[in-house]
Amino acid sequence: MPKMPSKRSKPSGSSTEAQLRKHALAIFQAALAAADPYGATLAHLRPCPDFVKNLYVVGAGKAAAAMARAVEKYYGKRLCAGVIVTKYGHSKPLKKIRCLEAAHPVPDQAGIHAAQEIAELCHNATKDDLVICLISGGASALLPSPVAGITLEEKQATTQLLLACGATIHELNCVRKHLSALKGGQLAHLAYPATLETLILSDVIGDPLDVIGSGPTVPDSSTFADAWEILYKYRLTGKIPGSVRHHLEQGVNFRIPETPKPGDKVFRKLRNQLVGSNRLSLVAAQAKAKELGYKPLLLSTSLDGEASEAAKTFAAIAREVRASGNPAKAPVALLAGGETTVALSNHHGLGGRNQEMALAAAIGIEKLERVVFLAAGTDGTDGPTEAAGAFATGSTIRRAAEIEFDAHEFLVRNDSYHFFRPLDDLVITGPTGTNVMDLYLMLVG
Amino acid sequence: MPKMPSKRSKPSGSSTEAQLRKHALAIFQAALAAADPYGATLAHLRPCPDFVKNLYVVGAGKAAAAMARAVEKYYGKRLCAGVIVTKYGHSKPLKKIRCLEAAHPVPDQAGIHAAQEIAELCHNATKDDLVICLISGGASALLPSPVAGITLEEKQATTQLLLACGATIHELNCVRKHLSALKGGQLAHLAYPATLETLILSDVIGDPLDVIGSGPTVPDSSTFADAWEILYKYRLTGKIPGSVRHHLEQGVNFRIPETPKPGDKVFRKLRNQLVGSNRLSLVAAQAKAKELGYKPLLLSTSLDGEASEAAKTFAAIAREVRASGNPAKAPVALLAGGETTVALSNHHGLGGRNQEMALAAAIGIEKLERVVFLAAGTDGTDGPTEAAGAFATGSTIRRAAEIEFDAHEFLVRNDSYHFFRPLDDLVITGPTGTNVMDLYLMLVG
Repeated sequence: MPKMPSKRSKPSGSSTEAQLRKHALAIFQAALAAADPYGATLAHLRPCPDFVKNLYVVGAGKAAAAMARAVEKYYGKRLCAGVIVTKYGHSKPLKKIRCLEAAHPVPDQAGIHAAQEIAELCHNATKDDLVICLISGGASALLPSPVAGITLEEKQATTQLLLACGATIHELNCVRKHLSALKGGQLAHLAYPATLETLILSDVIGDPLDVIGSGPTVPDSSTFADAWEILYKYRLTGKIPGSVRHHLEQGVNFRIPETPKPGDKVFRKLRNQLVGSNRLSLVAAQAKAKELGYKPLLLSTSLDGEASEAAKTFAAIAREVRASGNPAKAPVALLAGGETTVALSNHHGLGGRNQEMALAAAIGIEKLERVVFLAAGTDGTDGPTEAAGAFATGSTIRRAAEIEFDAHEFLVRNDSYHFFRPLDDLVITGPTGTNVMDLYLMLVG
Repeated sequence: MPKMPSKRSKPSGSSTEAQLRKHALAIFQAALAAADPYGATLAHLRPCPDFVKNLYVVGAGKAAAAMARAVEKYYGKRLCAGVIVTKYGHSKPLKKIRCLEAAHPVPDQAGIHAAQEIAELCHNATKDDLVICLISGGASALLPSPVAGITLEEKQATTQLLLACGATIHELNCVRKHLSALKGGQLAHLAYPATLETLILSDVIGDPLDVIGSGPTVPDSSTFADAWEILYKYRLTGKIPGSVRHHLEQGVNFRIPETPKPGDKVFRKLRNQLVGSNRLSLVAAQAKAKELGYKPLLLSTSLDGEASEAAKTFAAIAREVRASGNPAKAPVALLAGGETTVALSNHHGLGGRNQEMALAAAIGIEKLERVVFLAAGTDGTDGPTEAAGAFATGSTIRRAAEIEFDAHEFLVRNDSYHFFRPLDDLVITGPTGTNVMDLYLMLVG
């Protein structure tokens, strides 16, 4: 029997840092490709069922236009009409779908008009129609839809009061959904009895569908009573605008309908599908890493905390791979995603959470041979810099010392950008048009 | 063929938190057992070769007495004599080995006398003799041996000057070894041409043999010139005691011999062996976890950084195991070791780095079912408390809320001990007589 070539090729023993950097970049790019709104949407669309009379599209988010283009490409003439809303400046030329623009992150009147158009289209769809709904990051702000009798300003004032009291994101969402005409599954209610298919590009840790874009097509398990209790807990019932109090009181007393609950009939002809997310990108990164000969270990999709501290743990695992072959023998690719934070010092350095993480990782992997770390934002930006992130390698500290840079000093003043730029270790992609949070990968060759 | 019972039994599907806690404790105890000075030493001793005329023992460290007992037990009458030094109050009754006591962590005159006795015994051993040397945490301070002409106080003053300048541990060690008559391989030099076998219980991250107890039987690659350069770098050459300056100048000018270098003949009849370490304990933990039905993943033996931040990454990995079966499918045991730190707030709470880590982990694994985390010090102590560490489980936050405890508030004031005590979630072992740093384990059932 002839010897079959192995699909998994091992990187040669002489794999150098330069080679590992190329691999890291290739893996990052594979992850980005999986989160590309156009490609990811295209990959998840399914042939239009025969029963469908009219095929419509609605959508909101920073990636709405690219997602809509995929829908136009896939369905061609089958598509009847559509309307989407994206952030100012994020439009793309579309054929049948109207592309509106509105303000983000603070909603404006243009957003209200867009929400009304989208609501109308959904409301007019019949049981023989299919509505495709495209949701991506920013959808919530781009679809402001206060219920009748409450102004956008009054809704915002309520949100501000809750924020000032330290309410959790879950508490905020509960109240906001009960002041909205579209959020918390209510878009699904409007579209019913049409068939609804929602494609979601997630920019939220853990991909909670009811949180992304405030879940316009996702069951809402919270109630008016919950919303009221939250305001009561923070002693805000006397401080919120009268219109808001009136609306919630009506809801608590069952005079207006609740948001659709799990099991509600409106969800019977509906499918919510993630087309892109931090995890889906990491799954693509896993596949690419494997193809390049690494054993991939996906550690987490919800990394949080202080950037430089998360880097320490990452580096500690890399050291162990080198020292004892645990948790896996090299060549290994440690993969993770999430979103860290940086507690800024007062030193006015320039950088971002990913560059800061790479800087701390560089210290943690100092002198390790054949080790490369990459941390970058999938949206192509990291802090107020043109970089998406940075590379750290076992030789970073030595190369920095050659130009008399002390990594610790740069870290103390959060000046990661100025550290990595002269080392040519920035990861620069330009705006990617997507956002599935940050990606971290550590290659130990 | 009869069905063979599987050696690896899976925990039943109904494995509850209570069961996981028992497992976590059993795994921790297996790790402790592997670091027990008596047992670990006994497990690594080898029959005395026939050529040996006299078998001697020397040793220093907090675990020296327990290690010496193992030697007496193993060799019995074959043992001729010995002398060890341990911390005040740490003696144990021995038969042939003299057990001296001295001060730790600040050395005293009793330590100097002990070092002299040990040096003498080594010096008198001949080529037909075997000297067993027992090194454990604290050995460096318990074996103060300034070279002739330098007092203990002058050596200490030099160390203090370096510390005040922010010298690294490697720089400190380089200078100290060149002011010592025993450290940096010089005990091996004294014992030569006797055969030397050193058994080491490591309490240092990464187990660098030349650092543990200042490596009395380990080659020293640093030189008098290096030591002088370090003092020059910190502009201390004019500030150090005259005796120290004189000694180093003599060394730089080759008027006194260097510490033994790698390849030196004195290391030909010598073996340095780790009998206990953080990694060896984690290897034992791995085996125990596997026996209990978990897939063990040893993440790192050098975890460092802020305790609560390391906990976040640990929790993020546990969430991923639950969410997607990465980096391994449950039941899984994530294992790590190292030593974290706590940047204390001004709130005067009570706790330790391991209890603090457990508290932050509890927040990170809130509501996860069948997840238990344990963080504890292998010496049985954690901060100024009687606990070694604490458990965190998916139900910790809920159970705390039942007694109106807010985990975030306790974490902000570093008050982990008072948080865990009423929950009955402290890990209490009492003093263990060993120290291989801290252990962290996360079971996802």
